[in-house]
Amino acid sequence: MSQTASEIERGAAPAPEPPVRGRSRPWDRRLLRAALDRLGRPPLAVRLWDGHWEAGEAGTEPRLRLAIADRAALLGVLLDPEDRFGDLYSEGRIELVEGELVDLLTTLYRHAPPDAAWRKPRRHLRRWLRSANGLRQARRNIHHHYDIGNRFYALWLDPHMQYTCAYFPEPGMSLEQAQVAKMEHICRKLQLCPGDRVVEAGCGWGGLARYMAKHYGVHVTAYNISHEQVQYARQRALQEGLADRVHYVEDDYRNIQGEYDVFVSVGMLEHVGPKNYPTLGAVIDRCLTPEGRGLIHSIGRNRPRPMNSWIERRIFPGAHPPALREMMAIFESGGLSVLDVENLRLHYEETLRHWLARFEANVLEVRSLYDEAFVRAWRVYLSGSIAAFHCGELQLFQVVFARATNNRLPRNRAHLYRDPLPQDA
Amino acid sequence: MSQTASEIERGAAPAPEPPVRGRSRPWDRRLLRAALDRLGRPPLAVRLWDGHWEAGEAGTEPRLRLAIADRAALLGVLLDPEDRFGDLYSEGRIELVEGELVDLLTTLYRHAPPDAAWRKPRRHLRRWLRSANGLRQARRNIHHHYDIGNRFYALWLDPHMQYTCAYFPEPGMSLEQAQVAKMEHICRKLQLCPGDRVVEAGCGWGGLARYMAKHYGVHVTAYNISHEQVQYARQRALQEGLADRVHYVEDDYRNIQGEYDVFVSVGMLEHVGPKNYPTLGAVIDRCLTPEGRGLIHSIGRNRPRPMNSWIERRIFPGAHPPALREMMAIFESGGLSVLDVENLRLHYEETLRHWLARFEANVLEVRSLYDEAFVRAWRVYLSGSIAAFHCGELQLFQVVFARATNNRLPRNRAHLYRDPLPQDA
Repeated sequence: MSQTASEIERGAAPAPEPPVRGRSRPWDRRLLRAALDRLGRPPLAVRLWDGHWEAGEAGTEPRLRLAIADRAALLGVLLDPEDRFGDLYSEGRIELVEGELVDLLTTLYRHAPPDAAWRKPRRHLRRWLRSANGLRQARRNIHHHYDIGNRFYALWLDPHMQYTCAYFPEPGMSLEQAQVAKMEHICRKLQLCPGDRVVEAGCGWGGLARYMAKHYGVHVTAYNISHEQVQYARQRALQEGLADRVHYVEDDYRNIQGEYDVFVSVGMLEHVGPKNYPTLGAVIDRCLTPEGRGLIHSIGRNRPRPMNSWIERRIFPGAHPPALREMMAIFESGGLSVLDVENLRLHYEETLRHWLARFEANVLEVRSLYDEAFVRAWRVYLSGSIAAFHCGELQLFQVVFARATNNRLPRNRAHLYRDPLPQDA
Repeated sequence: MSQTASEIERGAAPAPEPPVRGRSRPWDRRLLRAALDRLGRPPLAVRLWDGHWEAGEAGTEPRLRLAIADRAALLGVLLDPEDRFGDLYSEGRIELVEGELVDLLTTLYRHAPPDAAWRKPRRHLRRWLRSANGLRQARRNIHHHYDIGNRFYALWLDPHMQYTCAYFPEPGMSLEQAQVAKMEHICRKLQLCPGDRVVEAGCGWGGLARYMAKHYGVHVTAYNISHEQVQYARQRALQEGLADRVHYVEDDYRNIQGEYDVFVSVGMLEHVGPKNYPTLGAVIDRCLTPEGRGLIHSIGRNRPRPMNSWIERRIFPGAHPPALREMMAIFESGGLSVLDVENLRLHYEETLRHWLARFEANVLEVRSLYDEAFVRAWRVYLSGSIAAFHCGELQLFQVVFARATNNRLPRNRAHLYRDPLPQDA
């Protein structure tokens, strides 16, 4: 990939010429000025389609400059930035002509904390329909995101195909190391013993299940409703000689059968929907042995609030990152006791920075697989997620639990930190 | 204290003669049998006032035998065991003639999980009046329990006068070691630095404040509304040469003034009442620096439910152990982010076992300070608390938090476990 192509792609210099769409009118400018006022004059400048510039912060030379290509784009982003920015950026009608997209989105998060726009009735209805996440809707929602092609994800994920927050306990770790560290950290939290029966709800491409079987000698039954992911996972288990210890089931978590010593779910809860948390609690209650233990790893919130509207619409239909308050419905329904919660928020920011860098390094191939709008949509999704974790809009919770009556608990959490992390896997 | 006196005191052999209260009637026995049936025939036997025995579990020789001294006691405990058992035991109208009180209460918890008796309207009203915990009611509630005499608590607490859950990371630790370990664990979680300004809400006899000042070189402002505790705390700080670094304020947490790097509260939240959690969150928000951090340590529940009715009435008026779901109101109101939750439930069981043993070892002195009913009330309170933590009815949560926008967070929690714990303090 040539440096120049990449830079053009990323919207850096040389700046694209604005399309000719007539002159901006005084009230276009007044609207823009009013919006910048309401944001508290952030350090950025906006260029309208006729070349008119409006600066946020007065008296400084902003590092962040964006161009708006037409009046409809201006009105859209001013009326409903949370919902419209993503599409307008994807379509190239909003372009960053100087600075980094992550910095722009961080600035916007800091100056304009997401408001109550989600209460808008139409959006509310749409969300409600999708977030019910019945068996069929859940399959549709998951297919939308995870079945767009294993090849695409392999371009920028680590070799274990971990599409969830990594764990960087030391600075300077590579993504590969941090994803292995994440899997290891989870295994330690679960105190896996050889022979344990583990059930995994929502296993992605199956990397954690294989890691557990290979390094801890456990038997894993891993559920997932993404057809492409399950196919991939089975093939890798075969290649790695783990097919006797890892069993991938293409089915919904609600249909989990059998009895298990360990329940684990990494990055599925976001797709479950709060309405179904009591059901998830009942599933855990049904399948866990009296001395079983479990872990749920999920993106979350400091307080209940729906997913960013654009991401919910374009990227993760039906998704909802729960506040801890909401997650408690799982444990309360399941007769479970929360033993340990760890918030890995900044680890997700770091994970996403790795993903974005790898995505950009492979952007030509991504474009050849899909199109420019796809590239730009993923760019704004990854960048926006970095900004959201950086600004504390999103959290990453790992919750360890056991049955309320289980008294075979570790005395402390030192076992998580005693041994050095494996250097490879 | 003679061994015999202690054993009689504890209700062990020789069994007291039942008072003569006439013969039990057929329906007394039928009622008792029905109650034992409803409990699923637990392994215990009950003797009525005329010597009639009724066994729970059939065909075995129960290790647990209790005597009920009169018909009103029988009816009382059958109609509302949660509320009446404590008083009837305190009055000696229910007596354990064989076995340990902790085992009896554990058996009852296992066979009869607390029901919804708290919904009874009168009890509900009483709770509601006390749990509002306005400034004056809070003082009355705290005075009821904590101002009964420092001398009493000194008889069975550790030398640091820690009346909260200790931390036993290794088996076989003494209470003294475990209370020091608890204070140290909290200091590590808070990442104290020399010179930090710490505010403590609800400081008991001030042990943690002195520990922090002495071992971490911080300045502590510690609030408490118990007059006796504050007097004691100030005197010890003077004696230990810490009066320049520890400032005890006899006032309510709602009146905390100033700006602090660290907020800490150990064992106060139980007395705050859920209605006031948003206020507590606002207090933290008001006093914490942008990069400040905090810790709340509290008895809790796996799901929302009020305090045991008898304990709330006799021991801790206005108290409520919150579920994590309820605690979240603090952090959500305060714009805070939960970083770490640790459940130390079994550590509280162990702490209470130490307290009960020390209480029994000093029972003659306790009786000389108060009376036999007081002794028996405290025995059933401590024993019942052991049973509640053992059976998973109560939890102990330590929650570490920071402002949602604070990105100066530790990468991991290894610093809690790196250095050995201090052997003394």
